[in-house]
Formats: sequence, C-alpha cells, structure tokens
Amino acid sequence: MMNKLKPPYYAVIFTSKRANVDQSLYIKTSDRMVELASKQPGFLGITSTRGTDGVGITVSYWETKENILNWKKNSEHFEAQKSGRNTWYEWYDVKICLVEREYGARNS
Amino acid sequence: MMNKLKPPYYAVIFTSKRANVDQSLYIKTSDRMVELASKQPGFLGITSTRGTDGVGITVSYWETKENILNWKKNSEHFEAQKSGRNTWYEWYDVKICLVEREYGARNS
Repeated sequence: MMNKLKPPYYAVIFTSKRANVDQSLYIKTSDRMVELASKQPGFLGITSTRGTDGVGITVSYWETKENILNWKKNSEHFEAQKSGRNTWYEWYDVKICLVEREYGARNS
Repeated sequence: MMNKLKPPYYAVIFTSKRANVDQSLYIKTSDRMVELASKQPGFLGITSTRGTDGVGITVSYWETKENILNWKKNSEHFEAQKSGRNTWYEWYDVKICLVEREYGARNS
C-alpha cells in the first residue's frame, strides 16, 4: 500500500489499451517514466496495473495541478507521450482529479 | 474506452492487493458487484485491472458524492465489503475524487 496521503491532493488516472507492438521499448520507456516522474516536484506516488486483456490503469499522485502540468511538459516525457499516442496505445484517456477523501485497511 | 464523460463528476479509486484465498467466490462476488453498481443512481462507468502481482485498481465513476455514499450503504455491497476487509484483501485503499478535467485519444 502507498503511504497514507493527506487530502486534498491531486490524482491523474491514466487508462489505456496497449497495441500489440514494441513490447521491449515500451517497457523500457515506461520504467524510465516512473523513475523520472518520481523525481519531479510535488510527486507523491504512483500505482500501475495491467490485465491480460491489455487494459491498464496507472494512477499518479501530486501535490498540485501545477506539478501535473509541469510533468506533462517535461521534454523526455513529452517524447514518450508522442510514442504513446502514435504507436503504443489503441486508446487512452487521462483524468485530472482532486482527491477529497481517503480511507483503507491492512490485514497483515 | 469508456464513453466520454463531462467533468465535473466523481471517481472512486479502489486500490487493493488480493490475498490468495477464495478465488471462485471472490470472482463471483466481484462480477455481481459490477452488475449491481451499474444499476445504482448516478453510476457512470467502471474500469478494473489486476496484474500478476495481485495488485489491482478499480475506478468507478459517479455523478455525485451522494451517489457514492448510497452505493457504499447498499446492503449486498455492505456484505461484500465485509468479506473484502476480513478475507479477500491483504490491503486496500479507497480515494474519493472530483474529476475536474479529461482528455484522450483513440488510434483505431
């Protein structure tokens, strides 16, 4: 589980369907983007899953909307986004959200 | 891809790690909860993925916070939540979010 965060903060929900291309380059870039994102100002965390049907959800967490915009404009990320749009995904969507409340539990 | 929604609306991000128990009952209940959720007032959609590490993200979308609270209190859902807390998940967290903005693309 992520460390407990304290709302309000921001979440970016990235939902996508992978096209069946470029697997090794995709994974390499994807790992690099997680590494790079985690060094940006205001980064709070990231969780990512993809099922066997190729549909994936990645949620990244940020202190402010400005932090998200700043990451979106990062030049290396910008190039990766281009490959995502043009090659790697059949479709994707991005939702910018204000997290208002959270709760959870741990059983172990 | 989900039908395009028009912000503002609400998202519930449910992140969880499955415990290695009760697989068939879990799947049956999980499918039933999707079916039941989709009949609730204000339901807009749901996307769910789980990777091979057992970590899953389910995001459901709703018109208002009241719709989310109403669904949380549904008696059949309430029982499922109890099993989730006590048995099915090593951990989980729930984040209630206001979706402020969205964009996306489709390549096919």
